[in-house]
Amino acid sequence: MLDALPLPHSFDSRAGHATLRRATPEDADAVIGLLSDDPISAARGDLASEADRPAYAAALAEILADRSNDLLVVELDGSIVGTLQLTSIPGMSRRGSRRLLVEAVRVRSDLRSSGIGSAVMRWVSDTASRAVDAAIVQLTSDASRTDAHRFYERLGYVGSHRGFKYTVPRA
Amino acid sequence: MLDALPLPHSFDSRAGHATLRRATPEDADAVIGLLSDDPISAARGDLASEADRPAYAAALAEILADRSNDLLVVELDGSIVGTLQLTSIPGMSRRGSRRLLVEAVRVRSDLRSSGIGSAVMRWVSDTASRAVDAAIVQLTSDASRTDAHRFYERLGYVGSHRGFKYTVPRA
Repeated sequence: MLDALPLPHSFDSRAGHATLRRATPEDADAVIGLLSDDPISAARGDLASEADRPAYAAALAEILADRSNDLLVVELDGSIVGTLQLTSIPGMSRRGSRRLLVEAVRVRSDLRSSGIGSAVMRWVSDTASRAVDAAIVQLTSDASRTDAHRFYERLGYVGSHRGFKYTVPRA
Repeated sequence: MLDALPLPHSFDSRAGHATLRRATPEDADAVIGLLSDDPISAARGDLASEADRPAYAAALAEILADRSNDLLVVELDGSIVGTLQLTSIPGMSRRGSRRLLVEAVRVRSDLRSSGIGSAVMRWVSDTASRAVDAAIVQLTSDASRTDAHRFYERLGYVGSHRGFKYTVPRA
């Protein structure tokens, strides 16, 4: 976990009062559910299958034990309705700047446009970034997610890069 | 540093026999030189200015002390002619897959097309990835670097994403 993050963070949205907090091992099923709820994630194998549960649980435990990583969840009316991962990365470029990498941002599909995603991303961009002393926040978004691209652009993100992925062939 | 990486790694290129190895604090100036040698990096402030040297040295020390990060350099005929950073990141998505993030890949401008970059990236994609148990390797490349995009595509990378960056305003 990223100790420096000022969590929990409470905020208002059009769906009601919500809380952004660090995930616990008990949140694994809710996060798995949010991933499989997304068609692009589902196409990559995130199907919430019982057989994959140990791998997800191990990943969550590793993220929470790692001083450079954190997994956050959004709680609304006692349910987990959003998640994202943050990674703090030291770097040489941009004059030795630290970066905050954002991965796997998901909000429950019926709560898009509720203001939850933008409240969370504003907190990431301006509060979490400063808490870890990052000069830049970065993320990649599947080229087909054009609504998400407009969402990030409204928040001040610049789509200046192409994101490349290489799937490691199984040995 | 990423303990699991099988380094040093020696390879042949059209410019001669080269070695990929972990950076040491003494390599700071050479890495700073490679960054400032690149017009896009230079435009972002990597100008090899004396005033920035402590920030670069601190970043390098932090990378080398971090179990999730490593800074590598390519040595050819006693000179540092290339560099890249690797970050190993646990994650929930893609069924709890680990990712290997590649940042700040640079090869000295007169040695492009020498085979050094492709030898290094093949080692990253298929050797380093497996050494850290990553299922995916990812990187972003400035949208204007179309030669680099073709280079990554030839190596099996898929430009499926857009990369967004947010510059944190100074408080």
